[in-house]
Amino acid sequence: MSPSSRGEPYQRVLAEVLSRVKPTPEERLKVGKVISRLFKAFKELKGLIPVNFKVEIEGSIAKDTWISGDKDIDVFILFPRSISVEELRAYGLRIAKACADRVGGEYRERYAEHPYLEVFIRGYHVDIVPAFMIRSPEEMISAVDRTPLHTKYVRSKLGAKMRDEVRLLKQFMKGIGVYGAERRVSGFSGYLAELLVIHYGSFIDVLKGVSSWRPHRTLIDIEGHYPPRLIEVVKEGFGKPPLVLIDPVDKRRNAAASVSLEKMATFIAASRFFLRKPSVRYFYPPKPSDINLREELKKRGTCLLAVKLPCPKLPPDVLWGEIYRSLEGFRNLFKAHSFEVLSCSAWSDEEERIVFLFELSSGRLPYLERHVGPPVGSPNEEDFVSKYLRGAYVLAGPFIEGNRWVVYKLRAFTRAKELLLKGAGKVRHGKHIAKLLDSMEVYEGEELDVLLNSFGEPFKEYFISWLTKRLYWLEG
Amino acid sequence: MSPSSRGEPYQRVLAEVLSRVKPTPEERLKVGKVISRLFKAFKELKGLIPVNFKVEIEGSIAKDTWISGDKDIDVFILFPRSISVEELRAYGLRIAKACADRVGGEYRERYAEHPYLEVFIRGYHVDIVPAFMIRSPEEMISAVDRTPLHTKYVRSKLGAKMRDEVRLLKQFMKGIGVYGAERRVSGFSGYLAELLVIHYGSFIDVLKGVSSWRPHRTLIDIEGHYPPRLIEVVKEGFGKPPLVLIDPVDKRRNAAASVSLEKMATFIAASRFFLRKPSVRYFYPPKPSDINLREELKKRGTCLLAVKLPCPKLPPDVLWGEIYRSLEGFRNLFKAHSFEVLSCSAWSDEEERIVFLFELSSGRLPYLERHVGPPVGSPNEEDFVSKYLRGAYVLAGPFIEGNRWVVYKLRAFTRAKELLLKGAGKVRHGKHIAKLLDSMEVYEGEELDVLLNSFGEPFKEYFISWLTKRLYWLEG
Repeated sequence: MSPSSRGEPYQRVLAEVLSRVKPTPEERLKVGKVISRLFKAFKELKGLIPVNFKVEIEGSIAKDTWISGDKDIDVFILFPRSISVEELRAYGLRIAKACADRVGGEYRERYAEHPYLEVFIRGYHVDIVPAFMIRSPEEMISAVDRTPLHTKYVRSKLGAKMRDEVRLLKQFMKGIGVYGAERRVSGFSGYLAELLVIHYGSFIDVLKGVSSWRPHRTLIDIEGHYPPRLIEVVKEGFGKPPLVLIDPVDKRRNAAASVSLEKMATFIAASRFFLRKPSVRYFYPPKPSDINLREELKKRGTCLLAVKLPCPKLPPDVLWGEIYRSLEGFRNLFKAHSFEVLSCSAWSDEEERIVFLFELSSGRLPYLERHVGPPVGSPNEEDFVSKYLRGAYVLAGPFIEGNRWVVYKLRAFTRAKELLLKGAGKVRHGKHIAKLLDSMEVYEGEELDVLLNSFGEPFKEYFISWLTKRLYWLEG
Repeated sequence: MSPSSRGEPYQRVLAEVLSRVKPTPEERLKVGKVISRLFKAFKELKGLIPVNFKVEIEGSIAKDTWISGDKDIDVFILFPRSISVEELRAYGLRIAKACADRVGGEYRERYAEHPYLEVFIRGYHVDIVPAFMIRSPEEMISAVDRTPLHTKYVRSKLGAKMRDEVRLLKQFMKGIGVYGAERRVSGFSGYLAELLVIHYGSFIDVLKGVSSWRPHRTLIDIEGHYPPRLIEVVKEGFGKPPLVLIDPVDKRRNAAASVSLEKMATFIAASRFFLRKPSVRYFYPPKPSDINLREELKKRGTCLLAVKLPCPKLPPDVLWGEIYRSLEGFRNLFKAHSFEVLSCSAWSDEEERIVFLFELSSGRLPYLERHVGPPVGSPNEEDFVSKYLRGAYVLAGPFIEGNRWVVYKLRAFTRAKELLLKGAGKVRHGKHIAKLLDSMEVYEGEELDVLLNSFGEPFKEYFISWLTKRLYWLEG
């Protein structure tokens, strides 16, 4: 590639992005005010319960690695380890609710390992999380207890300059679609982004490092918890995931456990291409342009199918666990009936609807199906032959091909849509989705326009991205 | 299976078949007369050439294992090993032609390892084959020299009763379609049938023995040329064919080298099923009943294709070598372009026409083709991405799936018929067929009726058997 085609120098790109991701003084002031309100409320609540507690801000606000526009505040109520888990749950919720009442926020209870409170105050979304106060991971009772250790570690390592590098990295990850440790994304957590900047030193150095990552080979051990000669054993111990990054505060934990192969590969590819030709597009992908479904179907000649289901009320990670299980189930159903799945995906607003999307080579298969039986001379050959010797469902044979009995018989399902409608119940589903199958609707080809016209922009954008499969950052 | 469903006892079946396969006294007389004529002619020709020669009848007539209705006589002119191969060829042909002239038969020259003469006398088809006279296989100069040793061996081993057992076995092999060592069939030679009767003792005992054959495992060494502990080494030495039967007169030769896996498996299956329920159908399969092509196509929903070519003038084994090579080539062409071949075959009258037959799952594929590229991070990823980033032939992507770059692009051939017409030249063909590709015609679906209505019964029967794939012996 000639230097002239390399686009803008990356300094100019990063300066522009930084001006957009860095919180403004007004934003900081606003967040500060919300936090002051919360602390004031908590202070007034001391004595409400018979144990001592400490309140701390965690997450990207505490580490000052948040991005302009973020509205998330994580507040931890830390209890001494001397109380029981039951006490922690009861006291935690009581304090959290009392605080929410005092600051006048709407709230709802949510569940992770413990119940916690999600509070909405002045446009902010505040999670109030009870946890045990610990000094080292060995004292940990539940996974959230480790969070304050993460906060502490990152704050001790990141100066102002590097915090901006983290902001660039997070926005880059968002732009290319790999940001987020939740199951829906299976990508990189904010903490992981921070660790990468700590390890490599700057945004650009992260990208340079990532350029030579290799899935299932790369292991990063920032604090040198393990001697290099043990690296293979350590990877084995973590179950050979695509990426291993030893959590600096807890060497038993892989801080990159959430990262899927595809998201890791996407990060590698985007890093390599960005370094060749930097562009703002990596950080802010353009909206996909509209498509004409009818035209698109005509050009492709494939079969598009959508399965619509009501959405069960579940915490997102549980919901997406079930969605991905059903998706895999549908894929296997198609495979078992010889329909070639080119691509499949799922979308949900996490409230009302789930949509499973499939593109098949063909939605119709011939009536005739080739069925390979036992080898000649095997004990069950006689059963096979007598089963298929007569019967209207036999189209040819039984005959011998190579060393095996083969028969051509009538296929059970020649239309993919019919297979979905009649076979969905035979697929393994999560228990909440399984109960909703009676409300299933299947749309084929141009029928998908109904969904595109009634489900709103987010679905439409998702669908177009899925169908066109353009990586917009490539086109800068 | 209850005894009552076991059909006729095999003795009755074999008695009926034997009455049909045993030559009648009239036939024997007629063959004897032809042979006398030939011997008389040869006697008169002594002195025509400056070397001595001996004339011998070989093959099934000499061994008295021929089947009623057979019209083949093998006559060998045996020369001393002292003359050169060139002399043998020249003298052999001269004597043979002079003999043919004397008996008043039409003839044509044919070629195996040496030239030989095919003579037609009184409805008989006489091969007059020059060979060297040898006493042991070590003295062999060409493969035909061994034939008299085979004749001698078999005559020494078979009494009148066992010669009838050979006749039953040959007819059984004909009936189930595995008789013939020529390339077209790739089955069992007459000599091999004789050896099996010698080895197992009777027709029924052959079938019992064959019932427990296992492809690539079975090795038969009638004369015990090799110690049992060397059996695996011997199989290895023969290139691990489906079946090994050490030639009793030449331990370096696998007398079953011609047998394909499919023909071996068919013989095994037919033996097993015959023993369960004997029937004359195994020996004399009924003619396949007629079909309505249009109805058949409708029931199947598949794509039938026929490629018609003129037939090059070649000895059958050379011709079928080329035919099978082209068939494999066409099959690979379909595979390379993602058309699923359910079944393929070839037919030829060995004079005028060759027809290649294909049944595909579908004759049409979608415009869209999935094309998997290099892994992310590999040296050629940039070339792949820049090749597919723009261009009207790109339908979606490039995108990342798992660890790989993938693109959806326009397929080169969406119709199988078009692929055959435009791609036949890119396939590897034998040199004679390659020259005839300009005359290629392709028929699809109901168009095959043209061939069925104009090519005569043998093609029609072949086509129906291929399409319906019924093993008629199973239905007895």
